Amino acid sequence: MFDLDDKLKQDSFFIGNLNISQLRLMNNSLYIWLILIPKINNVAELVDLSYSERIELMDEIAQISNCIKQVFNPYKLNIANLGNVVRQLHVHIIARNKGDPTWPDPVWGKDKPQELYVDDMHKLIIDKLTIELTKLSNFSL
Amino acid sequence: MFDLDDKLKQDSFFIGNLNISQLRLMNNSLYIWLILIPKINNVAELVDLSYSERIELMDEIAQISNCIKQVFNPYKLNIANLGNVVRQLHVHIIARNKGDPTWPDPVWGKDKPQELYVDDMHKLIIDKLTIELTKLSNFSL
Repeated sequence: MFDLDDKLKQDSFFIGNLNISQLRLMNNSLYIWLILIPKINNVAELVDLSYSERIELMDEIAQISNCIKQVFNPYKLNIANLGNVVRQLHVHIIARNKGDPTWPDPVWGKDKPQELYVDDMHKLIIDKLTIELTKLSNFSL
Repeated sequence: MFDLDDKLKQDSFFIGNLNISQLRLMNNSLYIWLILIPKINNVAELVDLSYSERIELMDEIAQISNCIKQVFNPYKLNIANLGNVVRQLHVHIIARNKGDPTWPDPVWGKDKPQELYVDDMHKLIIDKLTIELTKLSNFSL
């Protein structure tokens, strides 16, 4: 049974599952900001995964990157595993654009802006993404 | 012929080559901060690489992560491709520790501290790493 960290759960919305990861949308309407969380307990670092798990995660990072590019056409993707605050292994995939609220700095950090989604607006984003995601054979709701 | 971005070159020291990437040490003595730069021109995103290049890069990220863990035993690794400032594809692998100058925030950003290495101190770091790196069959100076 996969245990999702409480803070990750609270800060994001469920989108769906891939083979190895759960895909979620961060509750910050300032960016299209997804996270992939490998459904494996007690891993913090990429190197805590087995070789095949790591390759599969890289594959899912590429699938989600392509999906974001397809739907939102960002200027740049920011892809990162930090884990300084939440130790459970998770990978951020964030659409960045010139002139966005923290450009060109990263989006993480204690003084960085956050605007929660209101009025179920996150569902619009998830619906847009899901149209592309359902084309992937390893995606399920 | 591989073209390394001028800013990347200026901001970091050459350590060595792996199969697909060049490995460099960022000139910021506040952290053990390495970067892997795939030796492929005109790529900005992970998804601009071919499938096999991406898998090989993931492998090299894991090798360098293990090397840093072995030599410096950090509390957490921060691994990221941002590219908001320098667009050429490069992956940061940074050893983070509780209480380091920006902990738990990320190390990147315009107001973030930097202390250049002095008196060839970077060579000490590179020498320490190289002892581990030379154990890798795909590493060359």
